[in-house]
Order: sequence, then C-alpha cells, then structure tokens
Amino acid sequence: MSVTSHDVAQLAGVSQPTVSRALRDDPRVSKATRERVRKAADRLGYVPSDAGRALSSGRTRRIGLLLTDLENQFYPHIIAPAFHQLESHGYQLMLHTEVADNDVVAERLISNGLDGVLLATSTIDSVVPLRLRDRRLPFVYFNRTSDAVSADSAVVDPTQGMREAAEALSKHGHRRIAAILGPANTSTAVNREIALREALAQQGMSIPARYIHRGPFDTATGHAGTEHFLTMPQPPTAIVCGNDVVAFGALNAARSAGVGVPDDLSIIGFDDLPSASWPIIQLTTIAYDLDAMVRRAADLLIDRIQSPGRPLEESAFPSHLIERDTLGTVP
Amino acid sequence: MSVTSHDVAQLAGVSQPTVSRALRDDPRVSKATRERVRKAADRLGYVPSDAGRALSSGRTRRIGLLLTDLENQFYPHIIAPAFHQLESHGYQLMLHTEVADNDVVAERLISNGLDGVLLATSTIDSVVPLRLRDRRLPFVYFNRTSDAVSADSAVVDPTQGMREAAEALSKHGHRRIAAILGPANTSTAVNREIALREALAQQGMSIPARYIHRGPFDTATGHAGTEHFLTMPQPPTAIVCGNDVVAFGALNAARSAGVGVPDDLSIIGFDDLPSASWPIIQLTTIAYDLDAMVRRAADLLIDRIQSPGRPLEESAFPSHLIERDTLGTVP
Repeated sequence: MSVTSHDVAQLAGVSQPTVSRALRDDPRVSKATRERVRKAADRLGYVPSDAGRALSSGRTRRIGLLLTDLENQFYPHIIAPAFHQLESHGYQLMLHTEVADNDVVAERLISNGLDGVLLATSTIDSVVPLRLRDRRLPFVYFNRTSDAVSADSAVVDPTQGMREAAEALSKHGHRRIAAILGPANTSTAVNREIALREALAQQGMSIPARYIHRGPFDTATGHAGTEHFLTMPQPPTAIVCGNDVVAFGALNAARSAGVGVPDDLSIIGFDDLPSASWPIIQLTTIAYDLDAMVRRAADLLIDRIQSPGRPLEESAFPSHLIERDTLGTVP
Repeated sequence: MSVTSHDVAQLAGVSQPTVSRALRDDPRVSKATRERVRKAADRLGYVPSDAGRALSSGRTRRIGLLLTDLENQFYPHIIAPAFHQLESHGYQLMLHTEVADNDVVAERLISNGLDGVLLATSTIDSVVPLRLRDRRLPFVYFNRTSDAVSADSAVVDPTQGMREAAEALSKHGHRRIAAILGPANTSTAVNREIALREALAQQGMSIPARYIHRGPFDTATGHAGTEHFLTMPQPPTAIVCGNDVVAFGALNAARSAGVGVPDDLSIIGFDDLPSASWPIIQLTTIAYDLDAMVRRAADLLIDRIQSPGRPLEESAFPSHLIERDTLGTVP
C-alpha cells in the first residue's frame, strides 16, 4: 500500500487539504505547520502525486518556453537561466518548439496544462499571442514583441550598442558597410535594423539594398550572406550581423574564402555569447545582460500569474559595443 | 461553462472513458471511433486536461532528461534530438539537472510523475539509478553507465576512434602525449582513458602521470589543463581531450599562450560537435553518430515503458577519427 496524504495528515495532526498546501509552500499555512507536515511526509516516505496536486490546486507549476528550434547555439543561454530562475520560484520549465502551423503551436501550449508561457520566439504576424490571450494563459515576450497583443516583455534596446558600433566603424574608416539581418517578420530583426540605420545616418552613412542579406538567426545565414557579399565586384569592408551566431557563420565564410578578419573584412556580432570572447574567436560584438534579461522575463511571468491585474511592464535592457579582434581599420 | 469529456462523449455517441482513450490514441479504440471523437472534441473546442488525463491513465507521457548542468555546449546536441524523438512517440521532455545531493535529484525525478528517465549524467557511485530501480521508474543510461544497477544503455565505443588517433599520433612522430580526461567517477572518462592507453600501448607508447589532467567535461578544464602542461620544462607535443568542449578550451589556452596549433602543439577532441568542423576551428576529433545515439536512447526508454519485461539492451556506437587541422607533425 502506498502512503497517501491522509496518512501524512494523521501523523502531522492536520487536515488533508493542509498537507497539500503545506507541501506546495502555500503561505496560508504557517511555517511551523509546513515544517511539521514536511517531517511527517519524510518519515512516511510520502511523495505527492504531481497529477493529483495539479487537479486540487488548478496549478501545475509548469512554464512553457517557446523556441524556434533547439539546435540554435543561442538557446542554451536562455534555457539555463530560465530553468534556474523558474526553479527558484518552484516552477518547472517545459520546452516547446515552433512548427509550421502556429495554430498547432498555440493548441499544444494551451492543452499542456501550463501556468504560463515565455515566448522566446514570435513573429510579428503570429497567432500564438492572440490564442494565449483568448484562453487567458499568461505569457511574457522574451527578446521579441508583437503589436497584435500587448503583454509584459523583456527585450534589448539596441540603440546605444548600434550607435557605438557605427562610431567605431566610422572611426576605422569604413564606408561600405553591409548587414546580415534576421527575419523581417521578427521585432528583433526590425528593431536592430532601425537602430543600425539611424546610428549610421548620424555618421553620414547608409546601407544600400545590395548590402542587405536576411535569413534565420543561424550560422548558415551568416555564411551564405558573407559568401554572397564576397563575390561582389566591390564587396563591403565591414558586416554588422543580426546576432553572434550569424557572425560565427560570417567568420567561417571569410576563413573559407581566405579573406582575413579584420585585415580584409571587419565583422560585428550582437549578444556577446560566452564563445564570442574565446581567444580563438575574439568577436567584436554588441553586449547586454542576457542572463539578467532571462531572469527578468521569468520574474515578470510569475508576477503576472500571481497578480493578473497589475499594469503591463516592458523591461528594456541597454546595450553597448565590446571591441575585440574582428573590427579593424578599413583595408 | 467549460466543455467536458462528457459533452464530447454525448456528441460522439460513445462512453466517457472511450473519449479519454480515443484522445490519447489508445489502440483499443477503433480508428474510425478515434476520428469521430476527435471531430466532436474539435467542434466543441474541448481540450483534455493534462492532469485529468494523467490521473485516469496513470501515465503522464513525460520523460525526464537528467543533465549535469545546462550551460555545457554538449547538451544542446542531446536535448534537440531527444526532444524530437520523444515527441514522435507522443512524449514530452522535462529537463532536470544535478544538484549536490543525489538523493534530492532522485526524489525530484520520482515525485515528478515522469513515465521514464534518460540519465545523460551519472557518476559511478550515484544513488540515482538505485532509487529509480527501487521505485520502478524506467530509465536508460545515455553516454554513461553504472555497474551498480543494470539498465538499457546507448553509449559510444571509443576503441576504434582511439586506435586511429594513436596511429595518427605515432605516424606524425608524437611521443610526448598528454590527456585531459573527464571526472574519474564517470564511466565515459574511464572508458575513454582505457581505450586511449590500450591504443597507445599498441604503438609502444604510454602517458606518464604528469601528462594527465582531470576535471569536468567543460572548456575551463581544457584551458586549465593545457595552461598547466605548457608551463612544464618539457611540455607534451599533443593533447588528447576527453571531449570537444574540453578541446575548445585547450585551443583557447594555446592561442592565449601564443602556442601554434598544430605547429607547436596538436590537439584531438571527441564527439565531433557541429562547431568542431567550422572553418575557424577545424578540430581533429573522434566522431560517432551522436544524433542516432540519442534517438536510440529515447527508443529504448519508450520500449522499456511499454514492455517492462523484455531483455536489457546495450547499444554501443562505433567511433572513428576525423583528421582536420589541429593534428600535425611533431615540432
């Protein structure tokens, strides 16, 4: 016979609902009682059933994290801090990835008994935020936003980083500047492009259409864009990349083509992933506090779950340029 | 009022338990009935409750994946294929990480209502496999094994890869060979060390104790080990690393010290992660089919859940050397 919460209640001298509340650290139960219940549960070897707990509380303490795909080198740097921050609040992380049909994604999130969702990917035209709002499932935008549905968000403000990048490019004599940007239907790509164009304009520069390449935020995009630029009769002398993973692809393409970085070509990333600062990479990039941004998104979501009525909050994290070895004087 | 399974049952003209079975694709319900129930559920906008489903079936269709930590660059290459393979079986992946106390890890896995666990980390002396066995929670060893408790496993056989590495090292004239190995209480580290020593012995070589460095399978270990070797009066001319992530750290340390690879020092990895073949890295490494190994582990676990009685199976994946740019002739 397995031990039930009734056995624990009897041993601790409390009611059965108090056992459930105590074991999920409900503040309505005094700390002393919570400890007494926990000791009784330990003594009996009682393990609360996850499913039973979910039915009795209406809460599963599970949070979904929606990502584009799982292979992208950017995501471990989101998954790890999100996991730990949610764990510190007593919540578990469930991974979800995008599929072709956004309606299917939304249905999976909704039918999964989640208490909330971190949207780390979302196209401007996605139905996911609409569906989550309609089903009253709390969510927070991470590194993306959508105008269609307002929600709490934790994003990067690329303004200062792009301004410093444009100043550094100008100072090093670059005039033929290219950009490898993310998908045009993501707020991240749009915001970075606007910030870059404005910053270059302040230096009296602009990016012609032929020096723009767009694609998913992955190494293949950086590789293909750089290969394409290098075949031009007059290639750019510098490439600003939508993120570090794209920049790694750009570095690879330059190396394969025998083009020296930064002697022949300068490359700038965005994110400052740990590998960007590796001695064998030394990528010049735009940095912000990615860890703090993930933790903030997790906190905003838990706050929203616990206080559905509070005003919306946008946390915008400032950015700045970190100069390493991939930006140099124009050849 | 929210729609219940009784409403669906009425519309579809079946019993309520049939609705639950049909929606979880139970083969005891005919395909035609399953489709009728699904259509009725769609029409009513019925979403089965995850918690209710778990209670009625005793299955949650959730699989835990236990990892050492989430920051390690090796893990995305496990998480992605595990996620997709389990999804194809109708199961979801839940991430779990090790904490200091193995008993706590075991308790978390057990109390989480998981149907099974992929143990992608396990020390030889861990109590986790024992606890899972005692609680009859099915599990599979991935890339690790433990003698304490036998279970299905999907592992690499390092023999052929290490043999080819030793032959290549010998051919290139290396005699002073060092190794940066994983933790001595992991089967992975132990097996790779044994295979390396045997392969070197066949070439008439051995590794003296001063040329051995041990630590977690991360870049910091590779960096520290290489830095240490490079301060020796007679440093090694080649370093065999416990995995690619360790080798990336070794490459970084060599670059920081101004030591040319492979001109002054050869470095060999293990895993052949996608970034090992990047033009800016070009790591010589020991490869195996990591994706297939992850899928195999997921399949073994699902088989075990569905057929608890079948004989144990060990899937050992063969390995081989891939020569790129970090192995060269002895200086």
